[in-house]
Amino acid sequence: MALTQARTMPGVLELLPLDQIAFQRMLDVIRRNYERFGFLPVETPVMEFSDVLLTKTGGETERQVYFVQSTGALANAEKGEGVPELALRFDLTVPLARYVAEHEHDLSFPFRRYQMQRVYRGERAQRGRFREFYQCDIDVIGKDSLSVRYDAELPAVIYSVFRELDIGAFTIQINNRKLIRGFYESLGILDGEMQTLVLREVDKLDKRGADYLRETLTGPQFGLSAETAQKILDFSQGRSTSLQDAFDKLDALGSGSAALEEGRAELKEVLSMIRDFGVPESHYMLNFSIARGLDYYTGTVYETTLNDYPQIGSICSGGRYENLAGQYTKSKLPGVGISIGLTRLYWQLRDAGLIGTARSTVDVLVTQMDPAQLPAYLALAGELRGAGIATEVVLDGGKLGKQFKYADRAGIRFVIVLGEDELAKGVVTVKDLRREDQFEVARADLIKTLRVELAQAEVGT
Amino acid sequence: MALTQARTMPGVLELLPLDQIAFQRMLDVIRRNYERFGFLPVETPVMEFSDVLLTKTGGETERQVYFVQSTGALANAEKGEGVPELALRFDLTVPLARYVAEHEHDLSFPFRRYQMQRVYRGERAQRGRFREFYQCDIDVIGKDSLSVRYDAELPAVIYSVFRELDIGAFTIQINNRKLIRGFYESLGILDGEMQTLVLREVDKLDKRGADYLRETLTGPQFGLSAETAQKILDFSQGRSTSLQDAFDKLDALGSGSAALEEGRAELKEVLSMIRDFGVPESHYMLNFSIARGLDYYTGTVYETTLNDYPQIGSICSGGRYENLAGQYTKSKLPGVGISIGLTRLYWQLRDAGLIGTARSTVDVLVTQMDPAQLPAYLALAGELRGAGIATEVVLDGGKLGKQFKYADRAGIRFVIVLGEDELAKGVVTVKDLRREDQFEVARADLIKTLRVELAQAEVGT
Repeated sequence: MALTQARTMPGVLELLPLDQIAFQRMLDVIRRNYERFGFLPVETPVMEFSDVLLTKTGGETERQVYFVQSTGALANAEKGEGVPELALRFDLTVPLARYVAEHEHDLSFPFRRYQMQRVYRGERAQRGRFREFYQCDIDVIGKDSLSVRYDAELPAVIYSVFRELDIGAFTIQINNRKLIRGFYESLGILDGEMQTLVLREVDKLDKRGADYLRETLTGPQFGLSAETAQKILDFSQGRSTSLQDAFDKLDALGSGSAALEEGRAELKEVLSMIRDFGVPESHYMLNFSIARGLDYYTGTVYETTLNDYPQIGSICSGGRYENLAGQYTKSKLPGVGISIGLTRLYWQLRDAGLIGTARSTVDVLVTQMDPAQLPAYLALAGELRGAGIATEVVLDGGKLGKQFKYADRAGIRFVIVLGEDELAKGVVTVKDLRREDQFEVARADLIKTLRVELAQAEVGT
Repeated sequence: MALTQARTMPGVLELLPLDQIAFQRMLDVIRRNYERFGFLPVETPVMEFSDVLLTKTGGETERQVYFVQSTGALANAEKGEGVPELALRFDLTVPLARYVAEHEHDLSFPFRRYQMQRVYRGERAQRGRFREFYQCDIDVIGKDSLSVRYDAELPAVIYSVFRELDIGAFTIQINNRKLIRGFYESLGILDGEMQTLVLREVDKLDKRGADYLRETLTGPQFGLSAETAQKILDFSQGRSTSLQDAFDKLDALGSGSAALEEGRAELKEVLSMIRDFGVPESHYMLNFSIARGLDYYTGTVYETTLNDYPQIGSICSGGRYENLAGQYTKSKLPGVGISIGLTRLYWQLRDAGLIGTARSTVDVLVTQMDPAQLPAYLALAGELRGAGIATEVVLDGGKLGKQFKYADRAGIRFVIVLGEDELAKGVVTVKDLRREDQFEVARADLIKTLRVELAQAEVGT
């Protein structure tokens, strides 16, 4: 038979087992923290009806959608049926909106859900761009209204997640779209469309620099005065160094339009409440340049950056929106949410050398010295598993040296040898492949000893 | 704006949060047990290249495939490009074969992997048939060879999983394809194709009954003698009542072809070793009628049934195969594996009333008596979360009665009230919504007390 080359499509991240373990541990940390803050799990099907999925989206997003057709549907499509009935989700927000609208009467509000699933985008293949990637989202959805206090809770969750992920110092950057719009109004930029266009340019400040922004804003497209452009620039470069400094910077804006006052009041409440949530002032700041590209957001907006790796960009972003599911229901459903794009984050952390290959999830390998003793090996393994210690037994046999080599290559740290000597003496030999050390332990003390060793290894790695 | 109806495609199981929690707990139990036995996690992309995915499959499976096209590819397809380049996986076995072949030189053998992901089949919509469902698979893959002892390990994993899932008494049924083929040979049915056809009829024994099988085998298609048909029937109805009885039944078959002898020897080794793995004899049996439809299996085959719910059918099946990835690599990769179709199992258990809606993952709701005391509520919640207790705080406010009602509806058992009285006395009032009871506890003892209550609740539910 001619062989087919085993290969995966470009733009996906398929991991070897020890890398998958490292990835899975990140997923577990995120989930544990989401649950600790009282968010409930939701999973939605990977496919949605195309008309449901594509109500809101236009241009760019629509072109990146993956459509799905069963063999039967495909045959019909060839007869020219147009857009296929089904498509893969490209984010978790549209499925959330559909879910809440569909199950509205079975949910309790405020509805707090987390969802950690893969999403799909037909991106052009290039380094660091993924066509399949995990998003780990939380959202709080209110019915009719939702207190701005929830906008302060999400940074507390972000803090809790990234502290435990332990990938270096990070800062949660916070701003408010109402404040930005209000500030633009105070400069005489009253048109909403125009505000959005200016915002889009300001968003590029970090990439293109101040001169480019100044030129663009005073150029033919915007036609702003040099003074106005400078005010926008000065404003956009404002970042707080402490909570008090944030309040000072907010006050320094002077009085302004209703939008500005509303945005300022919200920011003050949110920023001080984040402190009440126990987030140290060193870990969050007011940053007037944060706008988030999407028109979707209407109030608080967040980005999170690693202090020592600014080039990675935002590792967790989100914000407040006025109405989640206006395309599906007349109910008004305001919400606030954040998203971690874990596949990209993991890939970047690994690329930056910040994350290594994990120790195996297998704690112990029980070797096979003598096939006749297999029942003893299996009984021992059963005891260890009963104590929650993940244990593999060599069933195939072969030379002991080869068995050690297998454990080493597979990332298994502890290897147990149970030979005639050991059986006679009622002991077990434990080899620590990491420390290249070995010790004998009484059979009765084995579980206790291994638990201590594994707990130490956990801290050590 | 005209509303689009929020709806999901037929054939998917989308769950409300408390059901999702119950489902997630099952996934967690399965994963924990797979890891305890030393299996390593693997995840593969949901899409594979169509030519890679469809090398082996024909007819039925191929018609059920979902093909995937990005918007750009779709435009090309309309010009008549034929089968789309990408398709969704329809099981986890083909992706495993592709994975092992692709990463062969980076893996350690025997390669023990678990994989718990959703798979997709364009099934006709009908009750209990799913187009998207979870499979939870483990496989052990050898390079060149793999000891039959691994065939005994998988029932130990099955036992461990279903004991902890706690969904009622179950029996792992074991047979061996070599033995079946050898037995047919001893009846003069020598042709492999013919054996497969007979097997397929025997597989229907439980559904169609003995008379139907007898008629079919003596009918024009098979033309077997009444005596031969009866021997097949008698054989197929053989089930062991203990390990000794299994050995007796195997011996009673008398001497036979090489295949029969090999199958018998394997079964004896596997059955007695399952006992060495600590599986009670009450939980596994030799069952000569188990064949598994797929031609894929070559030796040991498994099915698992719930003793009190035989109509649910097999809840965990699998077996031994000679060569995993012959379509992708010249390496010989024998293996043995099992699969739990969790979506269908969960659905059936819920349907049979064997599984209820879970208690919320949220352990505690901190109510809001007085907005001015929010910092105190947040500090308390922070302490609880730090102790690993999942805690939600009411941030919106509103009447206390409404807050209790929310907790009750959301399945949160413990509600904390911290009013002026409590703050003055240094205590906290805990309401247990399940027991409709409440008690006061010193603030300093709260975590300890809640831990005890939650541990008891865990046992109670």
